[in-house]
Amino acid sequence: MEHELQADTEAGRRLVALAESLAADFATRAGEHDREGSFPAENIDALRATGYLAAPVPRGCGGMGVETIRDVLVASSRLARGDGSTTIGVNMHLNVTMGLRRSYERAMANGDGARAAGIAATLQGIARGEIVLASLSTEPGRELTEPATRATRTGDGWTISGKKTFATMSEAATHLVVSVSWEDDDGHERVSFVQVPAGAPGVTLNHDWDAMGMRASGSGSVSFEDIAVGDGRLVGGFPMGTWNAGLMERFLSAGLVHASPYLGIAEAAAGQGLAMAAKAKKGRNGRPMAERPMIQLLAAENAVDLAAMRGIFDRATRLVDQYFADHIACADYDDVLIAFKEAQCAKTFLNAAAIRVVDRSLTLSGGAGYMSRHPLSRLYRDVRAGAFMHPLAANSAHEFIGRVELGLEPDAA
Amino acid sequence: MEHELQADTEAGRRLVALAESLAADFATRAGEHDREGSFPAENIDALRATGYLAAPVPRGCGGMGVETIRDVLVASSRLARGDGSTTIGVNMHLNVTMGLRRSYERAMANGDGARAAGIAATLQGIARGEIVLASLSTEPGRELTEPATRATRTGDGWTISGKKTFATMSEAATHLVVSVSWEDDDGHERVSFVQVPAGAPGVTLNHDWDAMGMRASGSGSVSFEDIAVGDGRLVGGFPMGTWNAGLMERFLSAGLVHASPYLGIAEAAAGQGLAMAAKAKKGRNGRPMAERPMIQLLAAENAVDLAAMRGIFDRATRLVDQYFADHIACADYDDVLIAFKEAQCAKTFLNAAAIRVVDRSLTLSGGAGYMSRHPLSRLYRDVRAGAFMHPLAANSAHEFIGRVELGLEPDAA
Amino acid sequence: MEHELQADTEAGRRLVALAESLAADFATRAGEHDREGSFPAENIDALRATGYLAAPVPRGCGGMGVETIRDVLVASSRLARGDGSTTIGVNMHLNVTMGLRRSYERAMANGDGARAAGIAATLQGIARGEIVLASLSTEPGRELTEPATRATRTGDGWTISGKKTFATMSEAATHLVVSVSWEDDDGHERVSFVQVPAGAPGVTLNHDWDAMGMRASGSGSVSFEDIAVGDGRLVGGFPMGTWNAGLMERFLSAGLVHASPYLGIAEAAAGQGLAMAAKAKKGRNGRPMAERPMIQLLAAENAVDLAAMRGIFDRATRLVDQYFADHIACADYDDVLIAFKEAQCAKTFLNAAAIRVVDRSLTLSGGAGYMSRHPLSRLYRDVRAGAFMHPLAANSAHEFIGRVELGLEPDAA
Amino acid sequence: MEHELQADTEAGRRLVALAESLAADFATRAGEHDREGSFPAENIDALRATGYLAAPVPRGCGGMGVETIRDVLVASSRLARGDGSTTIGVNMHLNVTMGLRRSYERAMANGDGARAAGIAATLQGIARGEIVLASLSTEPGRELTEPATRATRTGDGWTISGKKTFATMSEAATHLVVSVSWEDDDGHERVSFVQVPAGAPGVTLNHDWDAMGMRASGSGSVSFEDIAVGDGRLVGGFPMGTWNAGLMERFLSAGLVHASPYLGIAEAAAGQGLAMAAKAKKGRNGRPMAERPMIQLLAAENAVDLAAMRGIFDRATRLVDQYFADHIACADYDDVLIAFKEAQCAKTFLNAAAIRVVDRSLTLSGGAGYMSRHPLSRLYRDVRAGAFMHPLAANSAHEFIGRVELGLEPDAA
Repeated sequence: MEHELQADTEAGRRLVALAESLAADFATRAGEHDREGSFPAENIDALRATGYLAAPVPRGCGGMGVETIRDVLVASSRLARGDGSTTIGVNMHLNVTMGLRRSYERAMANGDGARAAGIAATLQGIARGEIVLASLSTEPGRELTEPATRATRTGDGWTISGKKTFATMSEAATHLVVSVSWEDDDGHERVSFVQVPAGAPGVTLNHDWDAMGMRASGSGSVSFEDIAVGDGRLVGGFPMGTWNAGLMERFLSAGLVHASPYLGIAEAAAGQGLAMAAKAKKGRNGRPMAERPMIQLLAAENAVDLAAMRGIFDRATRLVDQYFADHIACADYDDVLIAFKEAQCAKTFLNAAAIRVVDRSLTLSGGAGYMSRHPLSRLYRDVRAGAFMHPLAANSAHEFIGRVELGLEPDAA
Repeated sequence: MEHELQADTEAGRRLVALAESLAADFATRAGEHDREGSFPAENIDALRATGYLAAPVPRGCGGMGVETIRDVLVASSRLARGDGSTTIGVNMHLNVTMGLRRSYERAMANGDGARAAGIAATLQGIARGEIVLASLSTEPGRELTEPATRATRTGDGWTISGKKTFATMSEAATHLVVSVSWEDDDGHERVSFVQVPAGAPGVTLNHDWDAMGMRASGSGSVSFEDIAVGDGRLVGGFPMGTWNAGLMERFLSAGLVHASPYLGIAEAAAGQGLAMAAKAKKGRNGRPMAERPMIQLLAAENAVDLAAMRGIFDRATRLVDQYFADHIACADYDDVLIAFKEAQCAKTFLNAAAIRVVDRSLTLSGGAGYMSRHPLSRLYRDVRAGAFMHPLAANSAHEFIGRVELGLEPDAA
Repeated sequence: MEHELQADTEAGRRLVALAESLAADFATRAGEHDREGSFPAENIDALRATGYLAAPVPRGCGGMGVETIRDVLVASSRLARGDGSTTIGVNMHLNVTMGLRRSYERAMANGDGARAAGIAATLQGIARGEIVLASLSTEPGRELTEPATRATRTGDGWTISGKKTFATMSEAATHLVVSVSWEDDDGHERVSFVQVPAGAPGVTLNHDWDAMGMRASGSGSVSFEDIAVGDGRLVGGFPMGTWNAGLMERFLSAGLVHASPYLGIAEAAAGQGLAMAAKAKKGRNGRPMAERPMIQLLAAENAVDLAAMRGIFDRATRLVDQYFADHIACADYDDVLIAFKEAQCAKTFLNAAAIRVVDRSLTLSGGAGYMSRHPLSRLYRDVRAGAFMHPLAANSAHEFIGRVELGLEPDAA
Repeated sequence: MEHELQADTEAGRRLVALAESLAADFATRAGEHDREGSFPAENIDALRATGYLAAPVPRGCGGMGVETIRDVLVASSRLARGDGSTTIGVNMHLNVTMGLRRSYERAMANGDGARAAGIAATLQGIARGEIVLASLSTEPGRELTEPATRATRTGDGWTISGKKTFATMSEAATHLVVSVSWEDDDGHERVSFVQVPAGAPGVTLNHDWDAMGMRASGSGSVSFEDIAVGDGRLVGGFPMGTWNAGLMERFLSAGLVHASPYLGIAEAAAGQGLAMAAKAKKGRNGRPMAERPMIQLLAAENAVDLAAMRGIFDRATRLVDQYFADHIACADYDDVLIAFKEAQCAKTFLNAAAIRVVDRSLTLSGGAGYMSRHPLSRLYRDVRAGAFMHPLAANSAHEFIGRVELGLEPDAA
């Protein structure tokens, strides 16, 4: 009887097994990368070499063919048990890749063969390991729905200028997917997404990531100065500053993508706390710590929280997969609003519960986990990053969810 | 896009629809039964007449053929939106009925045709509405694993004496399933279950239920004085005072059965709180309450808790169904221990979260819900019953879960 | 070593001793009044006969001379251990009486001998038991700062019309202190307070209190139809719809007054839960419940919460006493804002913690407390009233406190 | 109107002012010491130079004459706003010094002039800045009541051998106060305390402190190998392995001493979070973050928690001061048990609430606080140390408190 989350599909099970194997390896270096704040390039190499980076790419395009967001994210939770920083990085790439696969399906459904072929080429590039993507949406002082990064028309295309923060995975990416705003012919502000080669002139990685946790994620800022991109490269064109169907769809999986590592971190922490508490003895009579009331309580509270985390994760990922399965051809506002809200409920619960679980695991460790050399001290710092991650951080998710529940327009700016 | 729990099977969907329809009717009388503390016999009649009481009975035996515990309990959560007291009653009957169906399958799997035939007859009686069951396991001062109610051998059978409390559904039952202890030939204490006609000489319903909530559930005590039962009527015979595989299997679904109404109660309360907060205005300028920060927060916290409740309910019910599907022929200690622990994690979370949700809904109601005439004031009292219900109440569940997590023997006495 | 709250002054200690003695008596009838929803007139008689109702009246005016709000409220917490409903009633009277004493002092400080003499006469009437006061400020759909109850000028005075809810103590009061709005000569809306004889023509007690808890408090609504009051009887005249210094001062002690019974209720519940858990045994081996991990944890969590409750109660009551001691002659906005905010912090914490403590006590009782005959089942319903009580209920206190902390104008409408 | 904790006495107010001034200075270097894990020797020098280290030393002995534990700890909370690591260090010294002052008073009360004179000499040495103390009681795998560090009789005294962990302040101390066990003439194990010169042969500071937080506290381990101490230098001699009156008295103030910095840390964090949230704007329309519901809620929840923290701190420190004032001549088991339990309730609440407050402050900071360069990222790591600190850490305090509440013998081993 297995009570942990398992993949639903055969391809998913292969990915989960691969994640577990890589996690065991990554864990051996996670402490060192954390101390140094260094980017684990060798982990990315391993992920590429094993085909992990092509997990959501269809078999026909050379990928592993993991078709559900759920199975990809179950694997992410496993990978994060070994190294959270690497996981939030690879998740960026996987999230964009899953989006490309869906865009491919939508193009096909809409009979847009040319667009489908273009996307297929990118997916094949990912499968060959030639393309690695990062998604750059966050800016200081701006909501996700209103990037200040600007696309300005030139004679034969656009130039892009601006600055993105929390540009996780940019250190390993060959291409950066950047959200931009621009003014349409009617004078309305619109939001699009554009793929920029990481090595393009004007792209500067600022290598300024130095945070309390997720130290090996290379989540520094990236500056864009007059990057030239060709006509037709701006995808989307959603109204700016509102949570319209298009933007919600675009960020629909992101909440769960960004929550998935924290399930794995909580599971890893709980396991370490339990292992220590189960064998520790205290006092001259060698009383087992496991017989102490508070130890039993903490162990139970972690088990209850983890069961709830797995449950809400399971349902929310299935719901999002269901949304996309039901809406291949085009977005639907009412449905995506429900799915988006439920995904944010799940993210909110998972982030908060993960913090609780790691905190209890520290107490279960009896002080050992507070030492720098102990992995729990890293997990304690890493786990706190989740509540800051988009699309809705802990300081705004409740407002969005609450307004939707009460029948009010959600806030977007 | 539907984010509430739905049945998985066609039969289940029929049952859920029936539950929703009955709930709407029961709700119209729930307040009155609550005030009077009267047993809603007419509700039981409706449940019998519509075939609801035969939901888990196989089609071949004349029932609705809802095969999974999950689907039956999704329906229970719906029914409880209308009347919690009726639901905990009918749940008792359904839980025993689901157990009979599994016993039938096990008898068949083990080639015990005689036993299978006997059970099938009972299931047919349930389908015809002639048999209604209640399960009587709780006693004051005793754990579930060690009933003081005694079966004593006579020349040609047994006599049963003792007293059970929280005998929910006994007022409507034709037969009572009673846990008893007895001494085997080797002098070991054993626990069995025996079916006693509710009208048998020596059975006394004490009609002493007068509690803060679940007032219409008729959960009084029942006394048994020298009830004669025939040889071979004691089922089980598990070692007393331990959580062995047999006893855990026997009570495996009970935790989720007893948690299911509280999901429905929480959903009903949250819905009422939201409806009031969404339309209320306050102050001479008519400021909508829905614009108040705390109202949005409470609405969001309820949404997050309900999403987690549905998630943990969904996973735990599937896990228990999976356990039974995997172990038709015989019990397995390691597996049932995991399933039982996970079911208790779910019950613990659901009971506690339901209390939180109803409490927030009261605040959302702005005082109206505190009035006796308002359904929320009943839900607030009803929802608190869950944490007292077996197999593990809130004062012992954490100990059990914690010990299992830490690799210690669970407490049973 | 005594860890419970004690009065600071000799008069206060006498009052606390009296409260403890009366509480023991009231407790014997609290269950019956709760069941019947009857007003405990005999308790009010006892409070009058023993001089309790004159506790804050200066010795010189014939009262007990308890000078601090703190000591009066420590006594209220003791009284509430026996009967919460009676306590919220008598608190209404005591709160107005304490306000009168302060008004007397302010009149003296400002050299307004006529006003001082008038108030002294009222205080003497209270001391003689001839005057019992209730405070009527709450209205459906209105904030405290903007009563719809209207004072309209007539030739030689005013007429008052409107309706008040939650008019606790009105059943025993000889005089009702009513908040009203009126328009001044410049067309500005103002809020005043006016004392109306309970038997005046046009005053109707609607006897419509039927709530889940505090059932014996007689907190029904009162209607006022064209009550004539003389010129100069409107006190206050504060700007309407804002939390100005005058209105905050007027409601400064109310938050703590309304929180004090819930400390006593929590203490009573915790004591009952502990007593039951300390002596209960479970299982055939008679394992003491007190040895169960969860029982120890719940007992500890209650002890921690009660210690925090006593601490925050102690500091906040001293702070409010300090404010009044420092501002005898006139109000100060900056200081009263801090004192008011801290009082609301205390009320918020006390209300929420009291609910937690009673809930845990129910679990400690092991089911017995859920029965109607058990006092805990009353405490569980009574304790939930606190969060609805003014000046800031649980659905608005955080907004007020948060805005003040962030340097924003507090909400008042 | 001041709502923060203030000293009660004139000497206390001088100390608090000094703490605030030093905190401002220490704060400028706290980040650097944190990064480097270096001990802030210059801070200790400043504390010595300003007389801070002699705060509890009577005026007559050359000290500041702060007589209450409460006032010393209010100052500690202020100091910790600037630098938590330095504060837990100086607290060790102050706690021992306050103990010496009480021992002096007890010796005088018992007419033991010789002992009083010896202690007075030490106090004078502290006042001259020649003596700085650290207290070493913690050992891995042992409860406080049963040190494995051993005192063995020699011809003319004792030798001490063993190892202590969490030896905060040992890097700056001239003398180490070490708990030891020894066997008395009747073969009973006893616990005493002995003062060892830090530079004595056989004393080795292992400089092995490398933790997630409190990185500048130098809390590494210290080894003792055959340290010779003279006859009569062992103080105490309490029965080993129980919480007897003597040992509880010895560790009575420690809980509050160890909780005091976390009040200051929480206050500092809340202040920083508020300051950021109050001025931040987000979105192209410059919406103030302070208008967001969640920001107001977090600000309010911090204010409520801080008010409760100050309240429980205030009452518990007064209670402990009262205990010592009431028991100058000798210990009393019943009274010290109550005082000790209340001190642990306060420590438990303060540690947990401080973690909550810092966590919310991080959210209020909107991500900025997660960066290494931001003081909040240090506070987040520092604040987690409190729950590990003696006499009762978070994994055992509830058990102790719960057992005492339930009338059971507290656990000590």
